[in-house]
Amino acid sequence: MYEATVSAPVNIACIKYWGKRDTKLILPTNSSLSVTLDQDHLRSTTTSRADESFEKGDRLWLNGKEETIKQGGRLGVCISELRGWRKIEEDKDSSLPKLSQWPLRIASYNNFPTAAGLASSASGLAALVASLAKLFQLPQNASQLSIIARQGSGSACRSLFGGYVAWREGTEKDGSDSLAEQIESETHWPEIHALICVVSDAKKGTSSTSGMQRTVETSTLLKERLNLVPSRMNDISQAIRSKNFEKFAILTMKDSNSFHSVCLDTFPPIFYLNDVSKSIIQVIEELNRSSGKIIAAYTFDAGPNAVIYSLQENIGKVIGAIKKFFPTEEDNQVDPFNTKPEELPVDFNENVVRQGGWEKGAVKSLIHTKVGDGPRTLSKEESLLNDQGEPKVLA
Amino acid sequence: MYEATVSAPVNIACIKYWGKRDTKLILPTNSSLSVTLDQDHLRSTTTSRADESFEKGDRLWLNGKEETIKQGGRLGVCISELRGWRKIEEDKDSSLPKLSQWPLRIASYNNFPTAAGLASSASGLAALVASLAKLFQLPQNASQLSIIARQGSGSACRSLFGGYVAWREGTEKDGSDSLAEQIESETHWPEIHALICVVSDAKKGTSSTSGMQRTVETSTLLKERLNLVPSRMNDISQAIRSKNFEKFAILTMKDSNSFHSVCLDTFPPIFYLNDVSKSIIQVIEELNRSSGKIIAAYTFDAGPNAVIYSLQENIGKVIGAIKKFFPTEEDNQVDPFNTKPEELPVDFNENVVRQGGWEKGAVKSLIHTKVGDGPRTLSKEESLLNDQGEPKVLA
Repeated sequence: MYEATVSAPVNIACIKYWGKRDTKLILPTNSSLSVTLDQDHLRSTTTSRADESFEKGDRLWLNGKEETIKQGGRLGVCISELRGWRKIEEDKDSSLPKLSQWPLRIASYNNFPTAAGLASSASGLAALVASLAKLFQLPQNASQLSIIARQGSGSACRSLFGGYVAWREGTEKDGSDSLAEQIESETHWPEIHALICVVSDAKKGTSSTSGMQRTVETSTLLKERLNLVPSRMNDISQAIRSKNFEKFAILTMKDSNSFHSVCLDTFPPIFYLNDVSKSIIQVIEELNRSSGKIIAAYTFDAGPNAVIYSLQENIGKVIGAIKKFFPTEEDNQVDPFNTKPEELPVDFNENVVRQGGWEKGAVKSLIHTKVGDGPRTLSKEESLLNDQGEPKVLA
Repeated sequence: MYEATVSAPVNIACIKYWGKRDTKLILPTNSSLSVTLDQDHLRSTTTSRADESFEKGDRLWLNGKEETIKQGGRLGVCISELRGWRKIEEDKDSSLPKLSQWPLRIASYNNFPTAAGLASSASGLAALVASLAKLFQLPQNASQLSIIARQGSGSACRSLFGGYVAWREGTEKDGSDSLAEQIESETHWPEIHALICVVSDAKKGTSSTSGMQRTVETSTLLKERLNLVPSRMNDISQAIRSKNFEKFAILTMKDSNSFHSVCLDTFPPIFYLNDVSKSIIQVIEELNRSSGKIIAAYTFDAGPNAVIYSLQENIGKVIGAIKKFFPTEEDNQVDPFNTKPEELPVDFNENVVRQGGWEKGAVKSLIHTKVGDGPRTLSKEESLLNDQGEPKVLA
């Protein structure tokens, strides 16, 4: 049986990707940099199987629900490009089975709800690409594979590595140099922890795909943001190499703010931060101020959820402050580290949050995780497909 | 008796003032442009009296509450500069009474609550400067007086004119060319109406004085905003001259968004728009879209309150839409025009607002007004001071 099961991690950018210079190839207007989160906690798992005996045509299930694979669509492009690479190997070595000609069955599963507002397309596309690459025994390295993953979902290219990952915007028209590279592995600076605050939102916001192009077309300030990114990329890479948390944190917060600024400068404006998001920012600012140093950094993607980075030694303070002002149902708190929430610093001014804090559920759930590794090849026992090539778990 | 009572209007900027290049002289980093609102509805009134027999020292009451006039403070500077100009006249004509040497009593009163979050300092300082100029019979014109008012409160300089007013940033180091000019009077385009939506806010935001300097010091995008303002100033002046509402509206909305973008790009970030403010933006966007043309423009100063500009013929649509989604106590709706709220356009997509609209009081009050004239000299009967030179109405 020709099959591979791979899991891939979520990544959360510190320097944000926002804007495409080529919407078809998914070439970005700027480089970006992310931290890969531990797939012990959050992951997409994908099983890919090729079988000559399958009925003609590829089929794919996401969380047990079948998805259409459109020719030339994002999924279709990834699959056909990887097939092409397999074909090259088969042409070189005629002893190889002709997997490139066989129908595929693919099942993918996220261990976190899509509704959590986490970037499931990044981990999902990375798992898809990594599992097919494994199935096809491709010789390409992770950076080369990231070129394919990028075409499935831009930020997916960064989920092909663990640790601290840059997506280089590249200059080639065909996108051949727009790829991900590891800045440092997760073992270089394993003390980076993350607290994900899932924020309740009354309304579905603008999708990032349409939002970012509206920014490219209408924002008057984006140009200046793009001028600033190269030095931010250098500076944060330096901060990571030298494990300078304060520098890392300030750049992360500033870049998140800059990204949301250009969203607001878009016409009509795009809002992702809501009042709860802003209140989280104010709590983190006050936690840093009252601690006498920067111990935490907030960042927000295209939605109201906060991800707060902190060193392991300080994450208890972050959890303590967030739990105090944003009470969450006990059931909705995931903490594999069993961290003890710490008291607020003596000097913390509680007036930065509205009187009495927020009502229960304003922050729906908390997930404590840390920096983690890149895609993992799993054993046959973990296959998501049954003998007939259908998903084991249905929606 | 030497006394003058003057009322002055509120103004709301379409191209925003945000940032000082000289904090002492209040010289701005960019030119700005505003619409003067009708003082039939919103105004500051100030009575200034000079009397040789008053006890030594100037005294000033704001809404019946005495304020300290600090030497070298903003009020102190305005009074002493105007005294200086009076002195010049007295030196030229010895028959003039020596008002410049006499103690002053000044009473000022806003006919709207300071808590409404309207720019009371603009109308207040304009009324102060205009009443003293009247008392002292100064020969200076309104633009020259605006140089003094600017030093009391930047945007006050624009309240010395009716209609459509530009504050030229100027280039001189001493601020002698940083003054207000009328672009067009209120009679040129009297059809511009405004709906002020006073938005409830749980927390007091950053003051504009400290906020704007934090932006100057830390925003990476402000520079680009400053590059954009000169062409916006030209374009909106053109739009006003040609009464092109759509152009006027788009520039107004874009500049408001751009201003709030640089606030968010400030470090730590400054937030003035809250979830209600953003929802108002979304209602106006949808009203424009479903009307098939731009009939309304939102703008926000350093707080969550919206001011919506619309032509008289369309203001009923604006009032209808706002009242529908942001219900307000009847007592808190001021509409001297008794406008009939109109139905939403058939094509209006109500999903832009959260399910069921907002709770009563999310928008606390509505004030419907229009473009209006500059400072008015009032009769003796309207004096705010009693015979003893004390305020008639106490706090």
